[in-house]
Amino acid sequence: MIRSLAFTTQGKLHSRNLEVPLMPTLLADTNLFLWVDLERATVEEAKLVLEDVFHFHPLSIEDCLTVSPSPKVEEYNPRPEDRFAPYLFMVIHAVDYNRKDGLFATSELNFFLGKNFLVTYHDEPLRTISQTEEQALKGTMQIARAPDRMAHTLLDSIVENYKPALDELSLEIAELEQQALQHPGKETLNKILQVKKEVMHLRQIIGPQREVLARFAHGEFKLIRAHLVPYYRDVYDALFHIGELAQAYTDSLTGILQVYLNMSSNQTGEVVKLLTLITVITTPLMMVGTWYGMNFHDMPEFGLPHAYPTAAAITFLSTAATFWYFKRKKWF
Amino acid sequence: MIRSLAFTTQGKLHSRNLEVPLMPTLLADTNLFLWVDLERATVEEAKLVLEDVFHFHPLSIEDCLTVSPSPKVEEYNPRPEDRFAPYLFMVIHAVDYNRKDGLFATSELNFFLGKNFLVTYHDEPLRTISQTEEQALKGTMQIARAPDRMAHTLLDSIVENYKPALDELSLEIAELEQQALQHPGKETLNKILQVKKEVMHLRQIIGPQREVLARFAHGEFKLIRAHLVPYYRDVYDALFHIGELAQAYTDSLTGILQVYLNMSSNQTGEVVKLLTLITVITTPLMMVGTWYGMNFHDMPEFGLPHAYPTAAAITFLSTAATFWYFKRKKWF
Amino acid sequence: MIRSLAFTTQGKLHSRNLEVPLMPTLLADTNLFLWVDLERATVEEAKLVLEDVFHFHPLSIEDCLTVSPSPKVEEYNPRPEDRFAPYLFMVIHAVDYNRKDGLFATSELNFFLGKNFLVTYHDEPLRTISQTEEQALKGTMQIARAPDRMAHTLLDSIVENYKPALDELSLEIAELEQQALQHPGKETLNKILQVKKEVMHLRQIIGPQREVLARFAHGEFKLIRAHLVPYYRDVYDALFHIGELAQAYTDSLTGILQVYLNMSSNQTGEVVKLLTLITVITTPLMMVGTWYGMNFHDMPEFGLPHAYPTAAAITFLSTAATFWYFKRKKWF
Amino acid sequence: MIRSLAFTTQGKLHSRNLEVPLMPTLLADTNLFLWVDLERATVEEAKLVLEDVFHFHPLSIEDCLTVSPSPKVEEYNPRPEDRFAPYLFMVIHAVDYNRKDGLFATSELNFFLGKNFLVTYHDEPLRTISQTEEQALKGTMQIARAPDRMAHTLLDSIVENYKPALDELSLEIAELEQQALQHPGKETLNKILQVKKEVMHLRQIIGPQREVLARFAHGEFKLIRAHLVPYYRDVYDALFHIGELAQAYTDSLTGILQVYLNMSSNQTGEVVKLLTLITVITTPLMMVGTWYGMNFHDMPEFGLPHAYPTAAAITFLSTAATFWYFKRKKWF
Amino acid sequence: MIRSLAFTTQGKLHSRNLEVPLMPTLLADTNLFLWVDLERATVEEAKLVLEDVFHFHPLSIEDCLTVSPSPKVEEYNPRPEDRFAPYLFMVIHAVDYNRKDGLFATSELNFFLGKNFLVTYHDEPLRTISQTEEQALKGTMQIARAPDRMAHTLLDSIVENYKPALDELSLEIAELEQQALQHPGKETLNKILQVKKEVMHLRQIIGPQREVLARFAHGEFKLIRAHLVPYYRDVYDALFHIGELAQAYTDSLTGILQVYLNMSSNQTGEVVKLLTLITVITTPLMMVGTWYGMNFHDMPEFGLPHAYPTAAAITFLSTAATFWYFKRKKWF
Repeated sequence: MIRSLAFTTQGKLHSRNLEVPLMPTLLADTNLFLWVDLERATVEEAKLVLEDVFHFHPLSIEDCLTVSPSPKVEEYNPRPEDRFAPYLFMVIHAVDYNRKDGLFATSELNFFLGKNFLVTYHDEPLRTISQTEEQALKGTMQIARAPDRMAHTLLDSIVENYKPALDELSLEIAELEQQALQHPGKETLNKILQVKKEVMHLRQIIGPQREVLARFAHGEFKLIRAHLVPYYRDVYDALFHIGELAQAYTDSLTGILQVYLNMSSNQTGEVVKLLTLITVITTPLMMVGTWYGMNFHDMPEFGLPHAYPTAAAITFLSTAATFWYFKRKKWF
Repeated sequence: MIRSLAFTTQGKLHSRNLEVPLMPTLLADTNLFLWVDLERATVEEAKLVLEDVFHFHPLSIEDCLTVSPSPKVEEYNPRPEDRFAPYLFMVIHAVDYNRKDGLFATSELNFFLGKNFLVTYHDEPLRTISQTEEQALKGTMQIARAPDRMAHTLLDSIVENYKPALDELSLEIAELEQQALQHPGKETLNKILQVKKEVMHLRQIIGPQREVLARFAHGEFKLIRAHLVPYYRDVYDALFHIGELAQAYTDSLTGILQVYLNMSSNQTGEVVKLLTLITVITTPLMMVGTWYGMNFHDMPEFGLPHAYPTAAAITFLSTAATFWYFKRKKWF
Repeated sequence: MIRSLAFTTQGKLHSRNLEVPLMPTLLADTNLFLWVDLERATVEEAKLVLEDVFHFHPLSIEDCLTVSPSPKVEEYNPRPEDRFAPYLFMVIHAVDYNRKDGLFATSELNFFLGKNFLVTYHDEPLRTISQTEEQALKGTMQIARAPDRMAHTLLDSIVENYKPALDELSLEIAELEQQALQHPGKETLNKILQVKKEVMHLRQIIGPQREVLARFAHGEFKLIRAHLVPYYRDVYDALFHIGELAQAYTDSLTGILQVYLNMSSNQTGEVVKLLTLITVITTPLMMVGTWYGMNFHDMPEFGLPHAYPTAAAITFLSTAATFWYFKRKKWF
Repeated sequence: MIRSLAFTTQGKLHSRNLEVPLMPTLLADTNLFLWVDLERATVEEAKLVLEDVFHFHPLSIEDCLTVSPSPKVEEYNPRPEDRFAPYLFMVIHAVDYNRKDGLFATSELNFFLGKNFLVTYHDEPLRTISQTEEQALKGTMQIARAPDRMAHTLLDSIVENYKPALDELSLEIAELEQQALQHPGKETLNKILQVKKEVMHLRQIIGPQREVLARFAHGEFKLIRAHLVPYYRDVYDALFHIGELAQAYTDSLTGILQVYLNMSSNQTGEVVKLLTLITVITTPLMMVGTWYGMNFHDMPEFGLPHAYPTAAAITFLSTAATFWYFKRKKWF
Repeated sequence: MIRSLAFTTQGKLHSRNLEVPLMPTLLADTNLFLWVDLERATVEEAKLVLEDVFHFHPLSIEDCLTVSPSPKVEEYNPRPEDRFAPYLFMVIHAVDYNRKDGLFATSELNFFLGKNFLVTYHDEPLRTISQTEEQALKGTMQIARAPDRMAHTLLDSIVENYKPALDELSLEIAELEQQALQHPGKETLNKILQVKKEVMHLRQIIGPQREVLARFAHGEFKLIRAHLVPYYRDVYDALFHIGELAQAYTDSLTGILQVYLNMSSNQTGEVVKLLTLITVITTPLMMVGTWYGMNFHDMPEFGLPHAYPTAAAITFLSTAATFWYFKRKKWF
């Protein structure tokens, strides 16, 4: 699907849903800013726009059409024989965390950002895109005045979308902390490791993303006008903070794992304590009982008066003493 | 609440609690230094001062009004169309460690530092602010002569306020060390992990703060006059040292955890030892007792003279030998 | 075996399987690009080509003929007395992962890349070489127009060949995760450590390779024309991603090991639980049985009516109570 | 106490124990080098010398009089309105390791190093100072020719004083290694952790000290003449080596801890083995004994000829077999 | 012992075993290259050569005569008043790994490398020196043409001598891997930690050595002619690879330790399993036997027909069932 919007430099909508052959004409008009969004585009559509209208470098087109493993940004400056205008090519991973499989689902968003155009390409419909389109059409925030403003709005919205996922993770970690102390079972271990994996995944996504945004924040690219750099730095700061949160989550989870493992070995310790307790407490009775179960003909104790009550008393008293001793040592 | 103070370049109080509309006039006077403190200000008050009086960059105003996750400093230099004077925008986290929830409570302090003005914005009343105001009014230390001096005093006071918290942590860690050796129970583990969390939180706060101050210490900003840079470096050094202390605390806690875990597994070891000891010591009696409890018709031992005393003696002697053997091996 | 191909600057095949003495003539023609591939070459063949035709620096020839432990790239610029043209010497490790011994088998590929020549040297026949040769002969992708294009194709193909190995590792790790939870035995531990070793080996291979490619990606070498640098950067990005994957695999394996160790100590815990359970449950019977097996003459219980049924009932009830108690505590 | 010594540029003693009011006159004479040592000086003495004689920057005076947490060096260059000559201010931690509390006791030594003066300030009497004074008075090594030479001698002596402490640590670690293998008790653990703490403390002291000396070794300061830089580099190298030793000690202690923990869990393993052994070996006797202790009326075995000797033989033989089996499996 | 050799710039031997007083004359001849080797030299010999002939800087002479803890390289450029020619002073640690004490024995080799001289100083006779002397005298490789070539040969030979030690370590590690799985006893742990220590020692030696060689490889020193830098880079690469191998060994040993510890705790687990098994299997017999050993007068079971065979059958069947159950659960 090819969506296209042309704005005036005042951020007003000029035209919409243009025919592809019309685009070059609009592009040539430096008073207009053209945004083309390709969503689930067929290869033909993509090639039509990326190659025939914008004449982008074949390498960036290939990167755009294939699944890129890691976010990146590259500057393309035309050689004399090239037909494209200078542009930035960027791959960013937007996060969609509906936790259906308990994992961050990321979808790739490709940007081609030029002086007066922005081409976005993505496989899945993205909330980020639709929200930004809406805002641009309302014209309240004047984000549609130039491609670098529009790109900032998109990036800002992508980073904003991380937050609900982080909040959910934070809740889950707090819950796991309780669970590790109270029910240190197999499922708890499984869940700890599961959440740890998610957090690690999150960090893997954020790491390179942050590097990409750092380059914007340092004002490395001339296509981003200087007075917009602070805005990009703001997005970078937000992402940096998310990275720090993810690090803190990892540390928390390591601590929770330690609690879990300790609780689990404590349990075995408690069981052994119980076994020992039982053994110790029954020992007097077992010793007396076994001893006087012997069949020697002339065991003198049998002839003593009150033999049995005495034996019973001794057994009872030593059992009670043992019991009291361990009670005092706080074994139970 | 809007508090405002104007000082002469000699650090004397010029006027106080100014009407907002008066501020621009005072600002224009380069012989005055204006300090405006916004405490729990309403959005209207904030906008009135930040936008209408100082015309700050919208991005820094937004950062000031929202909760910023991490400390930062940014330099704003006006473009021709901008109406603000060059200024530094800074977010610093002041610590309030009353340990009500056993966690460092930080509150954000925002600075706008210009050539002859300082605007501070914070949600909570801060001791740092009231102390510095008092000092400035006394005029003894001449901190009120310029905004860069005043900002230094504020930062110094913020860092100073970390110290009681650190002392308390240090005491607690020393106590935990004792506890881990003597009462390695569930609560001790819980407490160790709790304190570890606090120290990690402290390190998370200090890390970016240190980076912000490093930029001051390197004399990166022209708004801080060169001869004041050593003072900022001093604050940086103090913060650096706190960071090192926090690192040392982390290492101590890791050691304590190791002691705890070892003590806890030692306990199980001791219990197993006890179990084994009981089993071993009762073995001779149980063997003899069980054996001669058999009902065979013609067990020749029964017919021997002194059969029972002999059996009793053998039992007693082998039990004593076992007892002595383990005593010598220092089992108890 | 000496294979040689000469291409025109349009990427068309000019001649093939040249006699060695002819090579210098072709080399002198700047409109031609000469690719010489030495596969399992004898020392004589190698010296003939590398020394007598190309006059390469003795150090690079030595590095080429011996097994180099780690990938590298070096630029050789001739001094006046040297007879060679400027060239890059590169050692890259191609991966052949047929898992016969469960380890990545790497074979070294040496490049000498000049302005109009490319010499490749390798001990084993490499798929990478044959694939690229085929493509060059088809002429569809014009990779044969210059040595820097050809070298890119070779490097790209080498990196591409890592992928099946990575997929296989990924599957194996997923399987180990299951196994660690379900059958935490000796073989599982062995397999975890085995795969960990492989991943570590992979990382050791990739690390220096990445550094070599980084130098290309940064456009450090003049022999690689500027407009081809993005292509090299692409290869670098792919390799970088593989490195990140390997890191993620290591982290996964560390997690799996933790699960394994926990499962293994859990098993012992379960066994101890069983032992305790048996002991506890049989305790009432053993106590009653042993006690009333005593041979005292006048044990009053024996004279009571219903003595035996009462004893049996008490035994049964206390056993049942114990049973029920542990059942409720979820011991089994 | 104020000690002062003036030397000629030939390193000969010019005068000694000067009155404070005389100092400015001597300072003005560029042919003299003045060393003032403040030991346990009162605040008045300190202010008299540091402020009134040398007019040092208030910040460095404050740093000098308070306890500085971490070593540092700072260069002070006067602004026109300042009255001091350019100088370096340095805080170094000298080590006094008499092991009274088993911890490195450090005492702070503050340097003010100018073109022709050196002011040292310390709270405790330091061996380093007295040794260097003696050497300077003997005049053999001409260390008294200039403040940069003198400062080098002091630093060298400070670093030299680390060595006995290191040797003692090294011995203790070797001893702990033995102990961990042979007597893995509570005290050994305690001692390991104690020594580990000391080594960590040592590393904390050395780290920033090294950074300070690195700046000298790189010839960063103009007050240190170029031909003396190699001497400072030598001190740096020695400190660097101490840092590496401390790292090696940490690694050794980690290894020792691992041995200890393993030995400690091995002990529990041995105890469990013993318990199992006792249980297994007594099993045949207990089974036979219990079985034939039953009171059934018609147990046919009782009527068999040689019933009892047969039972005894079976018991004995199966016990012996079990014994032999575990003996062969090297259980004892 | 003073050995000395003078070579022409063609690498031919000019003269040998010169009198010390002759050396300055030969040194003055820029067409000659003088190599002086001091082996187990007396202090007088050393001072004669280093001070009186070459006038080296006193600091480098001191470093040469004392045992330097860590490798280093320093450039000495003469000031007008100095009498020495510019030279590099280098301390390198040669390895002698005869494993007499199972540790790498390193001996220090000091170099003074000038434009037309090389002075080497070492306490022990070194294979490296004798091998290089032989090669120089044969004149085949022309290593004797200049001091920078000669120094390269020496360094190359030193690095080459590490290899047998590495091979031996590699074998030992492979063996330990087997042992940890099969005989996880005290000796295995001891050996693992012993080899780990050796590898750590190796890494400690190589680390600073690598830094020294890196400076040569980067062509930092003018005394090493540019066209020889690749040769030094080659030595650096070899050393780098050794460092990587040592890292890989460390990782392997950590893995082996993990296997060992797991095997060791598995053993305890197996013992506990055995204990539980014995207890469980004997339980039916013990229960029946103890119960019917009671002396109640009127136990109705005794009056039943076939009471004893029934009891025996029940005992046998439940024992067999238990046995079968655990057999099926793969407990033995």
